[in-house]
Amino acid sequence: MPSISSFAAQSATSPLAPYQIERRDVGPKDVQIAIEYCGVCHTDIHQSKNDWGASNYPVVPGHEIIGKVSALGSEVKHLKIGQRVAVGCFVDSCHTCTSCNADLEQYCLNGFTATYNSATKDPGGFTYGGYSKSIVVDKHFVLTLPDGLDPAGAAPLLCAGITTYSPLRHWGIGPGKTVGIIGLGGLGHMGVKLSHAMGAKTVMITTSKNKAADAMKLGAHEVLISTDAMAMQAMTNQFDFLLNTIPVPHDFNHYMPLLKVDGTMCIVGSVGPTADLNTGPLIFGRKSVAGSLVGGIKETQEMLEFCAKHNIVSEIELIKMDEINQAYERMLKSNVKYRFVIDMNSMG
Amino acid sequence: MPSISSFAAQSATSPLAPYQIERRDVGPKDVQIAIEYCGVCHTDIHQSKNDWGASNYPVVPGHEIIGKVSALGSEVKHLKIGQRVAVGCFVDSCHTCTSCNADLEQYCLNGFTATYNSATKDPGGFTYGGYSKSIVVDKHFVLTLPDGLDPAGAAPLLCAGITTYSPLRHWGIGPGKTVGIIGLGGLGHMGVKLSHAMGAKTVMITTSKNKAADAMKLGAHEVLISTDAMAMQAMTNQFDFLLNTIPVPHDFNHYMPLLKVDGTMCIVGSVGPTADLNTGPLIFGRKSVAGSLVGGIKETQEMLEFCAKHNIVSEIELIKMDEINQAYERMLKSNVKYRFVIDMNSMG
Repeated sequence: MPSISSFAAQSATSPLAPYQIERRDVGPKDVQIAIEYCGVCHTDIHQSKNDWGASNYPVVPGHEIIGKVSALGSEVKHLKIGQRVAVGCFVDSCHTCTSCNADLEQYCLNGFTATYNSATKDPGGFTYGGYSKSIVVDKHFVLTLPDGLDPAGAAPLLCAGITTYSPLRHWGIGPGKTVGIIGLGGLGHMGVKLSHAMGAKTVMITTSKNKAADAMKLGAHEVLISTDAMAMQAMTNQFDFLLNTIPVPHDFNHYMPLLKVDGTMCIVGSVGPTADLNTGPLIFGRKSVAGSLVGGIKETQEMLEFCAKHNIVSEIELIKMDEINQAYERMLKSNVKYRFVIDMNSMG
Repeated sequence: MPSISSFAAQSATSPLAPYQIERRDVGPKDVQIAIEYCGVCHTDIHQSKNDWGASNYPVVPGHEIIGKVSALGSEVKHLKIGQRVAVGCFVDSCHTCTSCNADLEQYCLNGFTATYNSATKDPGGFTYGGYSKSIVVDKHFVLTLPDGLDPAGAAPLLCAGITTYSPLRHWGIGPGKTVGIIGLGGLGHMGVKLSHAMGAKTVMITTSKNKAADAMKLGAHEVLISTDAMAMQAMTNQFDFLLNTIPVPHDFNHYMPLLKVDGTMCIVGSVGPTADLNTGPLIFGRKSVAGSLVGGIKETQEMLEFCAKHNIVSEIELIKMDEINQAYERMLKSNVKYRFVIDMNSMG
């Protein structure tokens, strides 16, 4: 039974540090992956610090995983040793419910198994994530990385990428549609790139004028400063779809007038209670507020192919494993363009 | 220029009383209607009492109008004198915007003209509604009442009926779907009848056990008592669609777990700020909260035909015009099954 070196938080107040994690043996349906890169998601900070009250220490974060196959179970025929693969936000689901049967494992009615901090039968009783030299994952949840995608830049596609791709696809975004991406961070910058690539008129909606130039470089056709009342007024009834990536509670009502009749604002950033929702704009324009969570395995593979075709990866800052605690501090100040990715070869 | 007797509120505190209203002359595109019946909607109370701060006195309420054609403009060829017709919640719109062009006049981007208390070029400067012997309406906004529909019971179809019919149609309700109608009042009782007639499994969701028997009589297949935590838990993930007719602000989060993945709760009762919305259930099940407002003219005509085909009218209590103030008092105590309709022949 191999003993693998990882980086873990051992309490809500401890910084992440080297830790020995025991992974399960490679079963007949399993894929063992030697991790090369792991993206750093805001969720990692929440879980490390027990912000959601459900962390089981040690917590090994990381659910934007890129690596190479290092061992294969006897029943895994579609992968080869050395092949580059990827793992996203979950590593198991019930395979039997209506969601799983519809390739929507992210909405598994019996609850998916998250890539880390989720109860499992593995040694330790909980899953451990990608801040690690290696991981063992059921073949169904292992994606293949298309040729041509930079593996470090591709890591955040497994969460930030699919979190924005899936709702854009679900709500039929394409040529002739006008899409507003609200918030320019890890999720938002992927939303801009993907919406642009899908052929929609893409508008970055941000509080910060300083982000305008960057947004245009990423593919936004326009930038709307959401604190500019005149500019907001001028864009009333202009948007088919708003992808709201703001990661904290905020006033949804501020954005609803931007939507056309039958338009939808989809929340992918802020989980939990939000400010009062005024139903007036919903009723008087048949508008919707919706949510969306990452994507299913089939759709995640499709997203990777789409990104390869359109040459899309995340804008990243590559860090060494022992820089993770400083990276967290910078993320809490929104000081990253736009995603940290850990080079796992930097871990001894 | 005819001078017509109506019932009007003359201030926010005055009861409704007889009043002389001057209607516009019958123009070439106009239809003059001798009103036989007018339904009493909760909106009428709000507008009479200036609850929304926008009432222009005198206010003649009433937007659930049934009557007979009494005069026709020269360009109105599709109607005949004496024919039974109906008027709903609006009597004009811009006819040029994308909504109007899509037969969605209720979402007119330039604002529809409400049947009463709306600015207009008519004498008086504001529209006056159906608590009246007569009304003059542009032909586009005059519906025809199909044979076989009881004209008194049909009056509430023009608001309560279309308000529930339109979202049920828009969200594709039919056989194989499970629909929850939340709240059993004027809107809710129509929602139950229509959802049943569309072939959906229809569940009445109410706080009140006393309403269960009535709900079943109206066509509900089941009744779910929303204060029964065990019963609510048992119905988790069971509903394709929830039609929320509760007329006051309330906790939306209580109902969201009932929805299946991709389910929608549509608000048609409570306009304005509501309690905190928790985005968790939206995100973890790609669920939506939406709104809907009455229906367009084409769809309202379709609804009337549907109701004639399925023999659906509102459950009503017919009152005389001078009983209106007592009717308002009873409505404020939810003491009506399920809609008051005024017999206009009772007005001198």
